[in-house]
Amino acid sequence: MAMKRVAASALRAFTSSGDSTSSLVTRHLHASPGSKKIVGVFYDAKEYAAKNPNFLGCTENALGIRQWLESQGHQYIVTSDKEGPYCELEKHIPDLHVLITTPFHPAYVTAERIKKAKNLQLLLTAGIGSDHVDLKAAADAGLTVAEVTGSNVVSVAEDELMRILILVRNFVPGHHQVITGDWNVAGIAYRAYDLEGKTVGTVGAGRIGRLLLQRLKPFNCNLLYHDRLKMDPELENQIGAKFEEDLDKMLPKCDIIVINMPLTEKTRGMFNKDRIAKLKKGVLIVNNARAAIMDTQAVVDGCSSGQIGGYSGDVWNPQPAPKDHPWRYMPNQAMTPHISGTTIDAQIRYAAGVKDMLDRYFKGEDFPPQHYIVKDGELASQYR
Amino acid sequence: MAMKRVAASALRAFTSSGDSTSSLVTRHLHASPGSKKIVGVFYDAKEYAAKNPNFLGCTENALGIRQWLESQGHQYIVTSDKEGPYCELEKHIPDLHVLITTPFHPAYVTAERIKKAKNLQLLLTAGIGSDHVDLKAAADAGLTVAEVTGSNVVSVAEDELMRILILVRNFVPGHHQVITGDWNVAGIAYRAYDLEGKTVGTVGAGRIGRLLLQRLKPFNCNLLYHDRLKMDPELENQIGAKFEEDLDKMLPKCDIIVINMPLTEKTRGMFNKDRIAKLKKGVLIVNNARAAIMDTQAVVDGCSSGQIGGYSGDVWNPQPAPKDHPWRYMPNQAMTPHISGTTIDAQIRYAAGVKDMLDRYFKGEDFPPQHYIVKDGELASQYR
Repeated sequence: MAMKRVAASALRAFTSSGDSTSSLVTRHLHASPGSKKIVGVFYDAKEYAAKNPNFLGCTENALGIRQWLESQGHQYIVTSDKEGPYCELEKHIPDLHVLITTPFHPAYVTAERIKKAKNLQLLLTAGIGSDHVDLKAAADAGLTVAEVTGSNVVSVAEDELMRILILVRNFVPGHHQVITGDWNVAGIAYRAYDLEGKTVGTVGAGRIGRLLLQRLKPFNCNLLYHDRLKMDPELENQIGAKFEEDLDKMLPKCDIIVINMPLTEKTRGMFNKDRIAKLKKGVLIVNNARAAIMDTQAVVDGCSSGQIGGYSGDVWNPQPAPKDHPWRYMPNQAMTPHISGTTIDAQIRYAAGVKDMLDRYFKGEDFPPQHYIVKDGELASQYR
Repeated sequence: MAMKRVAASALRAFTSSGDSTSSLVTRHLHASPGSKKIVGVFYDAKEYAAKNPNFLGCTENALGIRQWLESQGHQYIVTSDKEGPYCELEKHIPDLHVLITTPFHPAYVTAERIKKAKNLQLLLTAGIGSDHVDLKAAADAGLTVAEVTGSNVVSVAEDELMRILILVRNFVPGHHQVITGDWNVAGIAYRAYDLEGKTVGTVGAGRIGRLLLQRLKPFNCNLLYHDRLKMDPELENQIGAKFEEDLDKMLPKCDIIVINMPLTEKTRGMFNKDRIAKLKKGVLIVNNARAAIMDTQAVVDGCSSGQIGGYSGDVWNPQPAPKDHPWRYMPNQAMTPHISGTTIDAQIRYAAGVKDMLDRYFKGEDFPPQHYIVKDGELASQYR
């Protein structure tokens, strides 16, 4: 099985190098024997690092793989310092072989950094998503880019359902009253609803969207989904959601819209002023996918006018969100920092996934195919 | 059908009056012809009243039944002023026939008030629950007490699931960072988990508890329930929860405990210091039932020491919670004012239920049997 995958990979590499018009320089996809320099960029946990032995995704605990890497003779540098020409990351760019990044504290891997990283072979996301990586530059440089597919799907689906309920039931103003010493049931209730009976549409019904729909089923909603393809009828029936081929026909039907698609050149800025104007007045939007799918100012304007009744998500553009990001201060938002895919359970999953891919890389084996974002100079289909 | 119910009721009244040792004075259970004075005590919505035409549960919109009542010649007084000897409610106590109250802004119906209310026949709860009513005094005075059973069950079950997710996923500190201009993923993530795989136990599996368990099913948790009776095996299998006969054997197994039982003399103060000490360290507790089931200070101490990892609910003792109520300021709380059963959808349901019971009262018909809390001098079984 591994043999077969290696053979196929070799064949594709051969095909690529045979294309003399391509600027592609395929770097070694797999490690040559000997010590590798691996750099991980994570968030600092400081006083929180010691509070939970399973808190693996921070610089201090470094995915729990330091001992394993060092016992094999590899060098493992971990930092949270990732911005500007004098940061710790920048120092290691010229000679690192593997760079591990995370969407929760993204190290931006620009074309310029890729050009400087002469030894770089492998970019791993500890988690899911690589829009902090210039994928075209990575592909052109012949790098392999991979993520731990599936590590976050349950986490994000649960988080989306939590956010739907928080918006529909108007939790945030209620909690705010509690901590400010207030008690005004009317000020909460006039816009608090049950989820039951509402129309919920997901834009994208990949793994996360499907897990969300499954969890929504007992709430007796009207469930809709838009995607490139209709689900298998049996699965669709089990999930109880209706396929909507035309996105712009689905959206105005929805009381609640959930964004479940990757950021691509097609989806960037998709929810702009015009599209938001066509939604149901007071629509609730949950977006744990990527912030740049929304037009930032159009969301602020929609929340301010009441066209959007509530907006919740954990993704921002850029990340970390600056102190003056307008989504922090718009009305009826229920935002958090980028957190949904970095629960302790998710960290255990993505730390294990990164370790497995490093192990395969050292041994010259392919990764589980669904983990690839860029392989052999080509983007995986969902990123095109 | 109506005949049959009236006959049964008459029979019970006969039996009661035959007991010469009882102090029971059965007041007229049904209205005599003519105008009735009906008083409703609701919360004021002020500027919010006009913001939503379905916002029925406030003084301004008065359940939407004013025109209907007045067109039949009844007098309908509505107020939010319910405390102390000079309040608006107190003025009407001596001659009202029907008093409508709500748990969201409870008018305390004490033995003293009942004694003064010589014309009082009917106490209706717009919503669910009557622990603001001295039920023994009401029973002794021969009053009928009824609620709109079922009006809140979906609302509360949804709200409980929201609160479970908020606690498990550590939403509140994340949102707090957003509004304070902060960004510290570690400070949220070190105690954020997925719900999947956790053990959730409900204390009480009546209508709300069952609806909660149904909604929890797709989350792949380990579901437990404690109640007086085991469910029908088919229902239990469909819900996927395991019966625990011994409460104190169930509780230490739970990562998350949800309170779903009425306040009675047996359940008052049930979660005291000793019982909380026996729970799993870091247990999450959701209580939308009644606050007095908890020992107030034991909850504060548990949250402060970390024995309780998070506490969320919408019920307080007393209500409205005073500004210095310690639950407002204890760590890891995700509290709101009493709100879960007064969503707009729930208001529509309980306004319709109250109207229906008034209509039956005017016509001398019985209510749907599940609505009674006190009838013919006796408490309904779930309140004993």
